[in-house]
Amino acid sequence: MSLVRVASFAVSLDGFGAGPDQSLDHPLGVGGPDMFAWFFATRTFRAMHGGEGGETGVDDDFAKKGFENVGAWILGRNMFGPVRGPWPDESWKGWWGDEPPYHVPAFVLTHHARQPVAMQGGTEFFFVTDGIEAALARAKEAAAGKDVRIGGGVATIRQYLQARLIDELHLVVAPVLLGRGEPLFQGLDLRALGYECVNHTPGERAASHVVIRRHAGSTVNS
Amino acid sequence: MSLVRVASFAVSLDGFGAGPDQSLDHPLGVGGPDMFAWFFATRTFRAMHGGEGGETGVDDDFAKKGFENVGAWILGRNMFGPVRGPWPDESWKGWWGDEPPYHVPAFVLTHHARQPVAMQGGTEFFFVTDGIEAALARAKEAAAGKDVRIGGGVATIRQYLQARLIDELHLVVAPVLLGRGEPLFQGLDLRALGYECVNHTPGERAASHVVIRRHAGSTVNS
Repeated sequence: MSLVRVASFAVSLDGFGAGPDQSLDHPLGVGGPDMFAWFFATRTFRAMHGGEGGETGVDDDFAKKGFENVGAWILGRNMFGPVRGPWPDESWKGWWGDEPPYHVPAFVLTHHARQPVAMQGGTEFFFVTDGIEAALARAKEAAAGKDVRIGGGVATIRQYLQARLIDELHLVVAPVLLGRGEPLFQGLDLRALGYECVNHTPGERAASHVVIRRHAGSTVNS
Repeated sequence: MSLVRVASFAVSLDGFGAGPDQSLDHPLGVGGPDMFAWFFATRTFRAMHGGEGGETGVDDDFAKKGFENVGAWILGRNMFGPVRGPWPDESWKGWWGDEPPYHVPAFVLTHHARQPVAMQGGTEFFFVTDGIEAALARAKEAAAGKDVRIGGGVATIRQYLQARLIDELHLVVAPVLLGRGEPLFQGLDLRALGYECVNHTPGERAASHVVIRRHAGSTVNS
């Protein structure tokens, strides 16, 4: 079955999915990288960036699983880059250099139209201006039976959760306090939306992996 | 050194320290007990209620440590009971029956004066109407060099955190979604207040123990 899922999304102990003040120098917000200590050490992360080595184990298993059977991605505008408002030109092509780690079509939510950008390694960025449901429809079509992974950031995931469009959410609770940033859960009644925690597994680096699923019986109109 | 500390305080994955709609039937709010699965199984919890058996291990070690070297407790009004407003009479004596699990003086924060109540087993409830700092001063005096444990609930802990009066906070992150309830962290910038996470230990029952401390160099006036 094709799933719509979030994977390897880090949350601070105080509930932030990103630090404050995102910028070119701070793609994850100030303090954000503290939440990714578990990820940076994994073999999967190293391989994403053309490196070798790295740790295997629980953290790596989850990181790896996040990339398996993914046929398309959806990214929020801020996850794609620090540019706000209309695109000044076509020069910004994501945080990830010439060969982004997606290798499949990636749909970027934006209010500002732009031509698709084909990158090395199979990633092609498409810019979707008609909302989250349209983006999901296009991503599902592109995925052709594989899963659609929603990358983030916080605002994007919250919109899809509120619309009950996410089937599975793998969060990594990192034992850090950010103090400020983008709250993932605030004002979102996940229990009422039909979500429950189905798995909790400690990782090697003081972070906890949590898997949240929408009840099978829970439909958008229930 | 005498510490002011919170121990064994459960938080849901979505950041609630208690469920919604506390009442006589739901002392922890609706859904609240889901967060205490780790605690109910421990030897310490069983012994608190005169029972035998129960599990030992990480969960029990933390639960037990929460009671060690405690010379006085501070409880919020709602942790003491469901009665709101002026005390209608002296009949309510806490949720815990004739012999509460404190066995030392316990200072209850309230806006409504009341005579102290001595219970079996050494617990004596004192009602403090002049604020959290006054309650802490009285608790420290009563503790005579031992620790002061702030029991809760959420509103009480938040006030003491905001005032930087808590030295150590042991939280237990439970893999449950409450959806609604009393948010522990919302609007509280613990990083700016000088707190950091110093320990993260997985327990036996899918909950994670987290210890947060105030920086040694961080004073109330810094």
